[in-house]
Amino acid sequence: MRIVALAGGIGGARFLRGLKDVVAPGDEITVVGNTGDDIHLFGLKVCPDLDTVMYTLGGGIHEGQGWGRAEETFAVKEELAAYGVGPSWFGLGDKDFATHIVRTQMLDAGYPLSAVTEALCDRWQPGVRLLPMSDDRVETHVRITDAQGTRAIHFQEYWVKLHAAVDAEAIIPVGADTAKPAPGVLEAIAAADVILFPPSNPVVSIGTVLAVPGVRAAVAAAAAPVVGLSPIIGGAPVRGMADKVLAAVGVEASAAAVALHYGADLLDGWLVDEADEAAVEPVSAAGIACRAVPLLMTDQAATAAMARAALELAEQVRR
Amino acid sequence: MRIVALAGGIGGARFLRGLKDVVAPGDEITVVGNTGDDIHLFGLKVCPDLDTVMYTLGGGIHEGQGWGRAEETFAVKEELAAYGVGPSWFGLGDKDFATHIVRTQMLDAGYPLSAVTEALCDRWQPGVRLLPMSDDRVETHVRITDAQGTRAIHFQEYWVKLHAAVDAEAIIPVGADTAKPAPGVLEAIAAADVILFPPSNPVVSIGTVLAVPGVRAAVAAAAAPVVGLSPIIGGAPVRGMADKVLAAVGVEASAAAVALHYGADLLDGWLVDEADEAAVEPVSAAGIACRAVPLLMTDQAATAAMARAALELAEQVRR
Repeated sequence: MRIVALAGGIGGARFLRGLKDVVAPGDEITVVGNTGDDIHLFGLKVCPDLDTVMYTLGGGIHEGQGWGRAEETFAVKEELAAYGVGPSWFGLGDKDFATHIVRTQMLDAGYPLSAVTEALCDRWQPGVRLLPMSDDRVETHVRITDAQGTRAIHFQEYWVKLHAAVDAEAIIPVGADTAKPAPGVLEAIAAADVILFPPSNPVVSIGTVLAVPGVRAAVAAAAAPVVGLSPIIGGAPVRGMADKVLAAVGVEASAAAVALHYGADLLDGWLVDEADEAAVEPVSAAGIACRAVPLLMTDQAATAAMARAALELAEQVRR
Repeated sequence: MRIVALAGGIGGARFLRGLKDVVAPGDEITVVGNTGDDIHLFGLKVCPDLDTVMYTLGGGIHEGQGWGRAEETFAVKEELAAYGVGPSWFGLGDKDFATHIVRTQMLDAGYPLSAVTEALCDRWQPGVRLLPMSDDRVETHVRITDAQGTRAIHFQEYWVKLHAAVDAEAIIPVGADTAKPAPGVLEAIAAADVILFPPSNPVVSIGTVLAVPGVRAAVAAAAAPVVGLSPIIGGAPVRGMADKVLAAVGVEASAAAVALHYGADLLDGWLVDEADEAAVEPVSAAGIACRAVPLLMTDQAATAAMARAALELAEQVRR
């Protein structure tokens, strides 16, 4: 079976680890990773979501925080601060720096991000085929209004520096309109037996992947059932600040609203948490098969059960 | 008094520290640093000699080895090795990486190396004005013949990887013929009251600085006395493998031969070690005032005494 998952960072990566536990030997998982939160820091290309997937599935992740490397040190960051070179709000560790140095060196040598990602995965052996959504530069910016006026800032500045403490007025995936899907992305979607939307951020993670021209249409046209898992439980994001960016696109922070935001042209099935039983009826009414199951990734067994439920729902809705 | 010193790495840096101890308040020291051993590693611009001067005079040097940072860690290097990305023979520590990251970021942003070096020195406050010999790329290559045939390799590969274990057949400062002296270099030489050649490598350090078009002529034409200190004591380099590269340019590894290699058109005075008393006569006969004094930089007091002897000889030969 060929499974394609679109994924963001922490939530997506953890879900994928559960998914790997429940697939059969020989099943192939292709992950189309969000690169809209990529950022250039200190002259280096940083791909937070790709790295979170790679480190999580490859056994190198800092389990406690969900991003970055385990047993990390921060000598480089402290030295950069001693030089007065910022920003200081993005926490790059020494081990993580090495990844960005290798990536930047390969990009500067002319390799596309997809080839670079494959080379990095040669070391990490994540057990999935990890594709960036695009080899072209796409950067999610967020329009805010604060004491400095109305302006668009990089998503990471909004998310990591400002902790989404001000309202997001608009989400702008800069460059997405002219980006091309990375080699293999459309082919994997077309050839998939199942397509999954993990409980990643529907706006700045999966939404950005879908914003790459051709991806949304490929998912909508795919023969495979498309099943998503709600990142919203009981009216609030399980983690992160998804409600802030949902508001920016005029979508209520509820399990049902997110499903309807994706729409029945994309989704065949939708899993909501048991706490959101009430969402089953309106989502089903929109033509999306909906089930309520436990959706908290409290441990790997619970996460695996979520993945199993998603695959089961995919079989039920398969046309 | 305005003192200009041409300098390589470890030996030059240590001498300069002694020089700082003996100059009068208000005296200005300008160091023209060799950049011929600069190398691009992992996509980063590394300037070993400039950094050795900066770290040594700024209090950040690893005293034991004479290069690199004190209390260094190697997480980045170990990670790069885990990615299979080399070379592994060049020992870049985490703190050192930060310097190269800042430098590369500034160079990529369009700043010339001289401006970058000034910015890095803002932190280190070396107490001298440190100028790269040129903002243009110059790379010293070494022609060797080994099992792989005759070829030219980067000086660092010859020095650090091969430990100069094969004969150097030629020293080629690639790019030197079209390089321009960095802003301020020729002006500093012309305005100097004293010009010093520390006991740095006469071929790949000071020789490379002199190979930048205009520098040799400026030193030769300078009104200031030019005094050098022999890096050869008793027929052998005090440190490093200078004999190997001297042989490549057909110069004997002796205190007298190095003075005559520089020549009376450059040198007004030359200090040799007491062990090389016999060099005084032939060097003097060539028109270069020569004195035998202790030249081992065993500690900072001994180094300061060497600097004092050089300044005294400069006064004696002043025209």
